[in-house]
Amino acid sequence: MAFKFLPKGFNFFDLFEKQVDCAVNSAHCFSELVSKGTLDVDSIKEIQDLEHQGDEAAHTIIKQLNKTFITPFDREDIHELTKQLDDVTDMINNIARRLLVFKLIGVDKKLVEFASVIEESTHAVALAVKGLRNMKNSKSIQEACVEVNRLENVGDTMRDAALAELFETATDPIAVIKWKEIYQYAETVLDICEDVAHVVESIIVKQA
Amino acid sequence: MAFKFLPKGFNFFDLFEKQVDCAVNSAHCFSELVSKGTLDVDSIKEIQDLEHQGDEAAHTIIKQLNKTFITPFDREDIHELTKQLDDVTDMINNIARRLLVFKLIGVDKKLVEFASVIEESTHAVALAVKGLRNMKNSKSIQEACVEVNRLENVGDTMRDAALAELFETATDPIAVIKWKEIYQYAETVLDICEDVAHVVESIIVKQA
Amino acid sequence: MAFKFLPKGFNFFDLFEKQVDCAVNSAHCFSELVSKGTLDVDSIKEIQDLEHQGDEAAHTIIKQLNKTFITPFDREDIHELTKQLDDVTDMINNIARRLLVFKLIGVDKKLVEFASVIEESTHAVALAVKGLRNMKNSKSIQEACVEVNRLENVGDTMRDAALAELFETATDPIAVIKWKEIYQYAETVLDICEDVAHVVESIIVKQA
Repeated sequence: MAFKFLPKGFNFFDLFEKQVDCAVNSAHCFSELVSKGTLDVDSIKEIQDLEHQGDEAAHTIIKQLNKTFITPFDREDIHELTKQLDDVTDMINNIARRLLVFKLIGVDKKLVEFASVIEESTHAVALAVKGLRNMKNSKSIQEACVEVNRLENVGDTMRDAALAELFETATDPIAVIKWKEIYQYAETVLDICEDVAHVVESIIVKQA
Repeated sequence: MAFKFLPKGFNFFDLFEKQVDCAVNSAHCFSELVSKGTLDVDSIKEIQDLEHQGDEAAHTIIKQLNKTFITPFDREDIHELTKQLDDVTDMINNIARRLLVFKLIGVDKKLVEFASVIEESTHAVALAVKGLRNMKNSKSIQEACVEVNRLENVGDTMRDAALAELFETATDPIAVIKWKEIYQYAETVLDICEDVAHVVESIIVKQA
Repeated sequence: MAFKFLPKGFNFFDLFEKQVDCAVNSAHCFSELVSKGTLDVDSIKEIQDLEHQGDEAAHTIIKQLNKTFITPFDREDIHELTKQLDDVTDMINNIARRLLVFKLIGVDKKLVEFASVIEESTHAVALAVKGLRNMKNSKSIQEACVEVNRLENVGDTMRDAALAELFETATDPIAVIKWKEIYQYAETVLDICEDVAHVVESIIVKQA
């Protein structure tokens, strides 16, 4: 697969990996952040930096895509993959910001669990995306995608359980408003990871 | 219109109809569920089963689409139609789950009305989608799409009225949080039905 | 750039400009509405009319697009540009309706600021979109897009500050529910303006 017409040294795969590394690293920082429960400013800053780095990689990809005739796979799949990878890191950053805005201090056991599932899911997403460099990996890529789908279902159940408990034990409506949004955003990260997996699956099927 | 390169017996239209039947049936179950007001577990289970069946049909369509050279209409329209049909059933399932999570027992007159409009809209969507098998139907397809658009406007007005009444008479903020989400989700089903109608309209115009 | 096969007198640019004028004018009406703080029915009606006009322009574009072989730029970019421009005016109309539903009377300083940033952003969007008629403008188009991106960041900060203050000083949970939604919707308008700018940037890069 040749990258004719591309600037020397430019490689879509390098930038997809940059994006997915940002997702993995921000999920890791997020997990640390919520495990501390102190709204640690350094972690929040680091998540924001990762979001900027991922954003830059996404912009470079889209810019090159618009200037390039030959691409490693369908243009619309590149566009979609980049957008969804960007959204993963964006959403993690949004939750971190929202925790700060809501001044949600203290360790919430359910959010810690969510963060751990999000970390697992970004690892599976990274396996899938990094596998695209070599389509001979298609079996291990598919297994990673299945894992991402499984974790999305886990997330659905976790969100429903978290919301049910929140509303059952609720006394402070303001706290309900805050935590409802945080849990729903956390589940949304897993939804977006699943969207990435769907794009990867499409790419593989077409190459088969 | 020939389906060369497609597995023997595979037919996109059969699967679109499977998807739209799932939407119609889940709308019917949902209507029954909210009319009983008892969070009937069997109805909720049936809605969930229909969501799984619709999901499988969607996956089969996308998989075949990626492997197929000749399609009955534009690939991006098939993709979009499948995705939006899937979202209709998904969203109905989401509301059912949320009713359970929120433990919303009792018959809510406004939600019963919403469910009835949703049922009407899925019937019109089914007429439109099933009409695609034979483009000679274009006039009746267009009428069905106009009806879906009309019902979306009805839904907007219903949601605004429901929210206005909810906030005017509100005493329990937790109940406001719950019902606000349910009404907004109900209106979203009608938005997605309208999205389906837009895709169908695009397909017809291109074939004209 | 020839518009063969298009009905005499049909011009995509005229309709994009119609759409963007609707966005600019509805942002202006919205700004006046929230500055008065009286839920002025005439302003709300005017915003709704502009939303209908924008909607009609969008439908005409999509209909022509589906019937036309030769387009001024990529079909999917036309589709996306039209959709996002439509969403700007839609979202402004949604906020106006929601203010009425929530009976939010009185001037809210933060919403007035938001409305002013939204007005600025729609002006920059208009510069970018109107520039597309003549690609020699590409430098000024790009500057307008940069400005839209800048205002989106301003909006993020404004929303976070508005939410932080809302939750810190909150005594009435029902008021929190209302204002939280209004501020988040206001920021969403700026997100959609940024989406328009992204499409415009893609169009320019491809023409370069």
